[in-house]
Amino acid sequence: ASDLHHSCQWGSGIRWGNGPTDTGMQRLALSQDDKSVRDWFIQTMKALKCNVTVDEMGNIFAVRPGRRANVPATFIGSHLDTQPTGGRYDGILGVLAGIEVIKTMNDMGLETEGGVGVVDWTNEEGARFPISMVSSGVWAECIPLAHAHNLKEVPTVASLPTAASAPETMKSALQKIGYLGDVPCSYKSTPMAAHFEVHIEQGPYLVSANQRVGVVTAVQAYRWFRLNVIGRDTHTGTTAFEHRADALYAFAQMMVRAREVAASKGCLASVGIVEAKPGSVNTVPGQVSFSLDIRGPETEQVAEVEKELRTDFDAIAAAEGAGIGKPCRVEWTLDFDSPAVKFHEDCIDCVQQSAQAVVADASVADTKSLVRTIMSGAGHDSVFTSKRVPTSMIFIPCKDGLSHHPEEFSTADDCATGASVILQAVVRYDRK
Amino acid sequence: ASDLHHSCQWGSGIRWGNGPTDTGMQRLALSQDDKSVRDWFIQTMKALKCNVTVDEMGNIFAVRPGRRANVPATFIGSHLDTQPTGGRYDGILGVLAGIEVIKTMNDMGLETEGGVGVVDWTNEEGARFPISMVSSGVWAECIPLAHAHNLKEVPTVASLPTAASAPETMKSALQKIGYLGDVPCSYKSTPMAAHFEVHIEQGPYLVSANQRVGVVTAVQAYRWFRLNVIGRDTHTGTTAFEHRADALYAFAQMMVRAREVAASKGCLASVGIVEAKPGSVNTVPGQVSFSLDIRGPETEQVAEVEKELRTDFDAIAAAEGAGIGKPCRVEWTLDFDSPAVKFHEDCIDCVQQSAQAVVADASVADTKSLVRTIMSGAGHDSVFTSKRVPTSMIFIPCKDGLSHHPEEFSTADDCATGASVILQAVVRYDRK
Ligand SMILES: NC(=O)NCCC(=O)O
Ligand SMILES: NC(=O)NCCC(=O)O
Repeated sequence: ASDLHHSCQWGSGIRWGNGPTDTGMQRLALSQDDKSVRDWFIQTMKALKCNVTVDEMGNIFAVRPGRRANVPATFIGSHLDTQPTGGRYDGILGVLAGIEVIKTMNDMGLETEGGVGVVDWTNEEGARFPISMVSSGVWAECIPLAHAHNLKEVPTVASLPTAASAPETMKSALQKIGYLGDVPCSYKSTPMAAHFEVHIEQGPYLVSANQRVGVVTAVQAYRWFRLNVIGRDTHTGTTAFEHRADALYAFAQMMVRAREVAASKGCLASVGIVEAKPGSVNTVPGQVSFSLDIRGPETEQVAEVEKELRTDFDAIAAAEGAGIGKPCRVEWTLDFDSPAVKFHEDCIDCVQQSAQAVVADASVADTKSLVRTIMSGAGHDSVFTSKRVPTSMIFIPCKDGLSHHPEEFSTADDCATGASVILQAVVRYDRK
Repeated sequence: ASDLHHSCQWGSGIRWGNGPTDTGMQRLALSQDDKSVRDWFIQTMKALKCNVTVDEMGNIFAVRPGRRANVPATFIGSHLDTQPTGGRYDGILGVLAGIEVIKTMNDMGLETEGGVGVVDWTNEEGARFPISMVSSGVWAECIPLAHAHNLKEVPTVASLPTAASAPETMKSALQKIGYLGDVPCSYKSTPMAAHFEVHIEQGPYLVSANQRVGVVTAVQAYRWFRLNVIGRDTHTGTTAFEHRADALYAFAQMMVRAREVAASKGCLASVGIVEAKPGSVNTVPGQVSFSLDIRGPETEQVAEVEKELRTDFDAIAAAEGAGIGKPCRVEWTLDFDSPAVKFHEDCIDCVQQSAQAVVADASVADTKSLVRTIMSGAGHDSVFTSKRVPTSMIFIPCKDGLSHHPEEFSTADDCATGASVILQAVVRYDRK
């Protein structure tokens, strides 16, 4: 846990309390702060006698060799990038738990059959480059390398005072911080025996039920869109409502409708980014672009919400500006599609057994009830590794179920539990 | 008219047709382009033998002396700044008509009792610094100089790639382009006998009725607000709707409600600027700021809309996040308050008579019907001059009633009519 906070010196964000670690994080993927923590990670892993490689997406793989040189390592992975107003646990915990595992194995002189690796995946958040888990996606050969390299940073990041004058692409950002590695980004070049990941739940189930470990069996489906609404700029003071094609008014109705439709189907729909142009108090915005994030337990449900919203948004756009025969139009671009995922039974079993073993000495009557199976609401790099190798995840509770917020918090005990479970899971898997 | 387009070489904006003048304008107040057109304006007026002064708000006054040295001049005024996606007529027409008037008087060797002046008022649009007509407001001593000097540019402008790293204030922007004059900005230092202004209507009444001139008798009331909605950042994928305090969802409901309430009271309510933070696809925005522009024929109506919206917005905010006991909050800041205005009978009479005289030779049976009295939906510098000196305005038709849009357009004939009417109105007023 002290290492976790140590690593948060690079990119520490919004302060919410007086303690030395009472800040959030702002460590956008491939920023200077991300470079610093990457440098530290590599140095740390080399000191732990790991072999380190960096691939074309900047993914960093550090492997502690096993007895047998010719079998792939079992990996522990997560990410060191954060949201613009993120916390100290989302992703960071997973990588730091990996470091703890290697340290512990070294200290114990534990030998494994295959090697054990720790991987830092690039831009998991999708906060700077708008595809989450993009680099594990390229590794799994689910996302073409060129598409990922050409991704442009989102406008909110591109307009930060520290930003370059033109929006960076992933490739130029990788080059800038010296992390465009030469190992091909593929599960063929960097094979894995399995992938395990420990993460804060980011939701309220474990914490509100006083449970200690979530055995993650599945991840819900989600799709990310960028939408453009095109209306007509005009004067706010002289233009009657009937004469407007107000792209922002259309947007407002769309956002209200999106929640309605999603809720009716047991799904979520959220807008995180909105930009209205030209951006003047007395001009009705003629152009609005926004992000739309639709999620649901089943891929089919997400598709249904999308379908209904396409119809509804068209109707909303058509009505706004109809009076002048110049209705608004709406255009959709799919940025990312992540179908629902079921993790691998073997990995789930290893996690389940390890979790029970770790909580066994808790001072409660029914320690079994401290562990539950759970579905992940968020995406994780494990989603993409699961396409190529056996994978599963471990959740620990976090305060108020809050994440993507500076006050995101898990106790040192819970973090330690997570690290212990993943250590055991890796060893169990190695022995299978 | 050729001068009008000549002056549009500085800051020409979005192209909408193939002709050399088929572009809009982007000449934000106190930008480098604004400096260039100001330099041209001063040089032009000096060549026309006018005396030029610049005051502390960068207002430029150019006076053609009359017979009597000790009486104030009658002014023709408007502005050379534009919206970010503005057109070639809003404001520009008024200043260029003033130049035409002085040229014509020189050509005709016309002598007047008092002088005749042309004034370019700074930042009329309020598009860069969010108080419209701010510099005529300071001149009228309705807005304190220090308040105006400290105004910060709006975020949409501050984030343009060409922007300075910190948002500029009006004072620093005036200094930067060398237009922080030393004449005190006051009607006491630069007195006027009267103020006339010719402007495109920016609305559909004249053009749809085939009328040629609007005699402006009044200006509707308006108020500009900046609102902040404070909620809580959280993860879009793991946070149920009941667990959110989504500031953007609250905003969307507010915008929909604002139109409803304004419409029910015969008023307008518009949002031109919106900013959601932190601005990440998978983070529910915890903070949204937006502009709100409320207008109505009577001051009292605007106040009523405001009152109702304050109540409704509080209710919307209170409901969003109630499930987690952390409801959204909404804060209002009044940026600008412009009560309804009635123009001066003497000036209105001069405009009315001049308009009738100018349209008298039109080839229609009833030339009287080509002129109508009209209320202005938009604010103009004449609003503030009317607080201190007799004032009125002349409207000419514009295509589709469209303004604050690159395709804003008035025919050369209509522009010439406007210039003729204001010439006659000034002469009539001078002879009173
Ligand atoms: N765990 C996490 O926050 N991942 C980001 C991808 C997502 O939005 O679900
Ligand atoms: N005429 C004009 O567009 N003035 C700007 C001030 C306003 O918003 O009414």
